Amino acid sequence: MTVVMSVPSVADAIQRFVDDALPRSHPIPEIDGLYRMMRDYAQRGGKMIRSKLLIASCIAHGGTFEAALPLAAALEMFQDWVLIHDDIEDESEERRGSPALHRLHGVPLALNAGDALHVYMWQVIHKARVDGAFEEFLEMIHRTAEGQQIDLGWIAANRWDISEQDYLELVQRKTAFYTVVSPLRLGALAASRDPDPRFTQAGLDLGVAFQIRDDWLNLAGSRAVYGKEIGGDLLEGKRTLMLVHLLHHLPDAQRLEVTRILSQPRSDKTPAQIQSILELIRTTGSLEYAQGVADLHAQRGLELLNAALSALPGRDAAQQIIEVSTALATRSA
Amino acid sequence: MTVVMSVPSVADAIQRFVDDALPRSHPIPEIDGLYRMMRDYAQRGGKMIRSKLLIASCIAHGGTFEAALPLAAALEMFQDWVLIHDDIEDESEERRGSPALHRLHGVPLALNAGDALHVYMWQVIHKARVDGAFEEFLEMIHRTAEGQQIDLGWIAANRWDISEQDYLELVQRKTAFYTVVSPLRLGALAASRDPDPRFTQAGLDLGVAFQIRDDWLNLAGSRAVYGKEIGGDLLEGKRTLMLVHLLHHLPDAQRLEVTRILSQPRSDKTPAQIQSILELIRTTGSLEYAQGVADLHAQRGLELLNAALSALPGRDAAQQIIEVSTALATRSA
Repeated sequence: MTVVMSVPSVADAIQRFVDDALPRSHPIPEIDGLYRMMRDYAQRGGKMIRSKLLIASCIAHGGTFEAALPLAAALEMFQDWVLIHDDIEDESEERRGSPALHRLHGVPLALNAGDALHVYMWQVIHKARVDGAFEEFLEMIHRTAEGQQIDLGWIAANRWDISEQDYLELVQRKTAFYTVVSPLRLGALAASRDPDPRFTQAGLDLGVAFQIRDDWLNLAGSRAVYGKEIGGDLLEGKRTLMLVHLLHHLPDAQRLEVTRILSQPRSDKTPAQIQSILELIRTTGSLEYAQGVADLHAQRGLELLNAALSALPGRDAAQQIIEVSTALATRSA
Repeated sequence: MTVVMSVPSVADAIQRFVDDALPRSHPIPEIDGLYRMMRDYAQRGGKMIRSKLLIASCIAHGGTFEAALPLAAALEMFQDWVLIHDDIEDESEERRGSPALHRLHGVPLALNAGDALHVYMWQVIHKARVDGAFEEFLEMIHRTAEGQQIDLGWIAANRWDISEQDYLELVQRKTAFYTVVSPLRLGALAASRDPDPRFTQAGLDLGVAFQIRDDWLNLAGSRAVYGKEIGGDLLEGKRTLMLVHLLHHLPDAQRLEVTRILSQPRSDKTPAQIQSILELIRTTGSLEYAQGVADLHAQRGLELLNAALSALPGRDAAQQIIEVSTALATRSA
């Protein structure tokens, strides 16, 4: 298992574990439908970056693939139920190339399926009996829900007076914990090792860099490569570092006009309006600025991560963690 | 602690435990708001029937109040997060005399607060370290989510061809598990005793009787006593035993007219339409029929429950369980 992150069989094994952790069929058609809904996002094939990172971390710590597998599967299940609920909260149209679950089945059934999947996630974690893993998942989901609350709270209150610091506080919670911090730590725990304390700051920095890059690609990428609708974040009114930068550099009248557009319901925004804001972001240099901030966090995170991984026994896996983290935190496609 | 179910200090202790299990405040206002939202339904003061039943069961099994308290608190937390999500799914206006959480904060924030509270529930269960309790909560929530899926699935598919058997399958899952079966079993587990296998069937029967009664009161009760809007279930299009009975006894044309009205969005239903269906339910004898079915289940459940409780050491608590179960399963106010 030297090349954890790119071997197809790893993704297959995780997907099979998730599949086996869920009930298969039921004579009552509505319950049978629930079981299919719980599997839907998993079967659409996510990238499994986070769960593979967890497995690589376990192997780097001298643990086995098998020891990491249940927690990796639970992390995928976490992402699946959270995405079901996020898609409702954000009124998203699509997920992984198909309509979002609530677009297929309506909000009530999708919401309930997310809850049901959430419960099966805890079942997997409980059965795994890895010391400290339960607490790590608790911490991870507490932080993620807090980050989500900040994000949704800004939208609900139509808040645009957001500083770069506010944005970083958001992203550390909403993204960095479950994308980097907890996968690294859970891998150590699966190998029965205490996680290096440096993983936390390294993961926060790398997670921040990853999210800025992800938002950057939503504005500057190509749909073919990025896989989601370009400018979708502007339709959603999502607060990104590019927008924070733009709003701090626009004259008052123009800033008011931009926030007025962004605050409209998704369906009221015209393609021309989205295009005009995209143009402002480009001409104000907000894309370059955000790239610079992402690079700074990426560099700091990678240095810390290198130091924390340097003494671990699994050299190949440690090297892969560095490679994947570098790719995540600096990706431009 | 001889009179568990009616002593105010029991409710206070449960509420205090829930309060202590949740974080208190946070410098970031949105996160602080999340903490307040997680406490909101608990602070509105539910009846705590289920958590008190759990405590009474523990004491009946020779356990202590203290041993049962964490699980009782977790059961309240379960009900609180489920109600937050149910209120979104059912588009409910009110909960415990105040606007539903999503009416106060919007769907996205309320949905996320429900998820956050769900996680804290598992934290309490995990920390309680009661053998078998984790598995019991898993089973309870699996069944409840399945029941909810049946209910929501019928509404989404506009299904009205529901038999009495379909209805019973729904209610056993959606209500009986978390209202009676699991509280009885969790009480035994908190006292380090194996739950009597008869608790399951007893709880299913009593839970069915309770739900039929609850639905009955929604149609036939008075708002002052019942505490919720009378006929609200008809506005919601909720499938109840009274409706199942009515639809099986109406001529085709009238049945089509009734289901047409019931299938409309809540906001399109007029008070006159609701009144006309209420009148049909009365004249068709559906209220009496449902009462009869509830009584049958209540009687069977109470007999089984009596038998299962008869050998337990805590006689006062066992007697209270019988009294409360009788009241729940036969209540007419």
